[in-house]
Amino acid sequence: MFWSPLVENLSPYTAGEQPGGDIIKLNTNENPYPPSPLVIEAIDAAFKNRSLGLYPDPGCKALREAAAEYFKVKPENVFCGNGSDEVLAFAFAAFFAGAQNTTQKILFPDITYSFYKVYCKLWNIPYTEIPLNNNFLINTDDYMQENNGVIFAEPNAPTGIALGDNAINTVIEWQKKIGKVCIIDKAYSAFAKLPARLREGPGEGLQYTIYNNLLNIYTLSKSHALAGLRVGFAIGDAHLIKGLERVRDSFNSYPVDTLAQAGATAALRDKKYYDDTTEKVIATRERMGNQLKEKQFTVLPSDANFLFIKHPLLSGETYFSMLRKQNILVRHWNTDKIADYVRVTIGTDEQMNTFMEASLNENYY
Amino acid sequence: MFWSPLVENLSPYTAGEQPGGDIIKLNTNENPYPPSPLVIEAIDAAFKNRSLGLYPDPGCKALREAAAEYFKVKPENVFCGNGSDEVLAFAFAAFFAGAQNTTQKILFPDITYSFYKVYCKLWNIPYTEIPLNNNFLINTDDYMQENNGVIFAEPNAPTGIALGDNAINTVIEWQKKIGKVCIIDKAYSAFAKLPARLREGPGEGLQYTIYNNLLNIYTLSKSHALAGLRVGFAIGDAHLIKGLERVRDSFNSYPVDTLAQAGATAALRDKKYYDDTTEKVIATRERMGNQLKEKQFTVLPSDANFLFIKHPLLSGETYFSMLRKQNILVRHWNTDKIADYVRVTIGTDEQMNTFMEASLNENYY
Repeated sequence: MFWSPLVENLSPYTAGEQPGGDIIKLNTNENPYPPSPLVIEAIDAAFKNRSLGLYPDPGCKALREAAAEYFKVKPENVFCGNGSDEVLAFAFAAFFAGAQNTTQKILFPDITYSFYKVYCKLWNIPYTEIPLNNNFLINTDDYMQENNGVIFAEPNAPTGIALGDNAINTVIEWQKKIGKVCIIDKAYSAFAKLPARLREGPGEGLQYTIYNNLLNIYTLSKSHALAGLRVGFAIGDAHLIKGLERVRDSFNSYPVDTLAQAGATAALRDKKYYDDTTEKVIATRERMGNQLKEKQFTVLPSDANFLFIKHPLLSGETYFSMLRKQNILVRHWNTDKIADYVRVTIGTDEQMNTFMEASLNENYY
Repeated sequence: MFWSPLVENLSPYTAGEQPGGDIIKLNTNENPYPPSPLVIEAIDAAFKNRSLGLYPDPGCKALREAAAEYFKVKPENVFCGNGSDEVLAFAFAAFFAGAQNTTQKILFPDITYSFYKVYCKLWNIPYTEIPLNNNFLINTDDYMQENNGVIFAEPNAPTGIALGDNAINTVIEWQKKIGKVCIIDKAYSAFAKLPARLREGPGEGLQYTIYNNLLNIYTLSKSHALAGLRVGFAIGDAHLIKGLERVRDSFNSYPVDTLAQAGATAALRDKKYYDDTTEKVIATRERMGNQLKEKQFTVLPSDANFLFIKHPLLSGETYFSMLRKQNILVRHWNTDKIADYVRVTIGTDEQMNTFMEASLNENYY
């Protein structure tokens, strides 16, 4: 009673647990290293420079400028939100919602970030899930059909597998031809197996290509160790950014608070610190992936800060439980096609050594 | 091109300006006093106790407990969001959206927080605006009709006029009879002309009444001087709170960041500090209201931290401009019925004295 038909019909997302206590937490892809000391300094300074009694800057001016510099675009190509989940929620509304022709559906892989389906329910967006192939790969030919929009995660989650720029560009071009938007969710893209100079970012990084129908979405939660601060971005054509602003200003004028704006701005400017922590995470991932393969685990090739793996003897559920009993928390989905797997966030080397021992501890089989 | 039909059709809210520089800012109902020192301490401690690299507590446990204590309810009666604007956005979705019978509209006053109309566009909710009477008062009889829900601000904005508990209870009872929700937006209720012991809040304050169809919405932006931190609440029956959680978990699992949770929790626990600042704001409001009336201004009776006033000689637009030229920013809406008025946030006594002089400065007439 009293619930609206909309709320009755939702299928809310279930986030990974956030337990306290003495546990090795490898379940929500947080960064094992602390944020840059400059972030803490910037937040301290924000206290002093501007009272918390005043509203935040609704235009996020300094933060957008820092992001524009980081991604080598203009501030008008940047949208800031309360984590990339909020940015995604706005983007589904801005580019996919309210279509009259409900035979045109949006397309995304059947195995991907499970929030996409949830947003579709929220905004009443018809969708089709396109199956990955048997190797958990996206086949871009499957997307060359009439649709109302496409969204991918690159690299994909929870598989960790990246599609690659050439394949993605094929999809963007197709979407352009049919006049529809393509959203790429790059939450994990900083951890790609590329030399640092080829990663997006400031300095010698790649120049960002603006397609007028492409929106790339980023978060500071993973690569910049700021999950607790809730800051995400969309980068794209100024007209798409304006669409996001229209949704935001119909929802909440000030989603990014004063301290988050200050901390995030500082984070984007400390390239050296985050290049170092990102390289450490990548090195640990590669070492751990090789060790697991030596022990006959199935390990999908990862470009993210996690590994999606299958124990050689145990079901996903049993493997999850044996780790849980040893105070290690990973993520397991009891759903079709991926029930044999668990997703393991890359922690510090020490945490991962403990994880490795626990994975092989026959007392818990 | 590329915008969804939904985004094309929105009418976004325009928030008050947030200019920097040397200006007396009386345009967005911020609190002129700083937040409690305990808030700053709590945020500092949150840095040390929990890395910003970890996601915030999605359940906002400590904050909900503090709010439950403050409002004398149970934690299950509390919902926390990223400012009361976000809580309102979720509430419109949870209780008003998706109705099949579009002849049943939601009802709210024609002069009230202008975001309500914006939410209706966002969620495609049919609505009827009920005119205030000539004295800017709500006539509750007008609401005793079939509807899909009712929302009031109490006290109302931008008038500042409170309806009173008896009249509100009549509406809640009617809504209960027809099986519909009543939302009361109490953003400014802390500033009511009541003895402190009769205000909601901890200690000797009033016991909160839970109706199963009533949702009260609060913010820490005004009374608790935390507009920069973005924390709002809904208080109501546990089933209504669950409805809000379903919408949130279909939108963004972690809308309140780690630092905001810590600061807000401390704010709710420092009753003495905020009682004092609230009393100061009320005293300044009463003094200023009387002075303005002596100078032949029209001053609506205010239970909020602002005054809605009409200059004896000047149009609202001219009065706004003459203040602006003297570096004082108030709020003016160039809309039907209220174009003669400006809304003036209550600042410190010193700021208000400057405002008073500027209002009477004939060099700017």
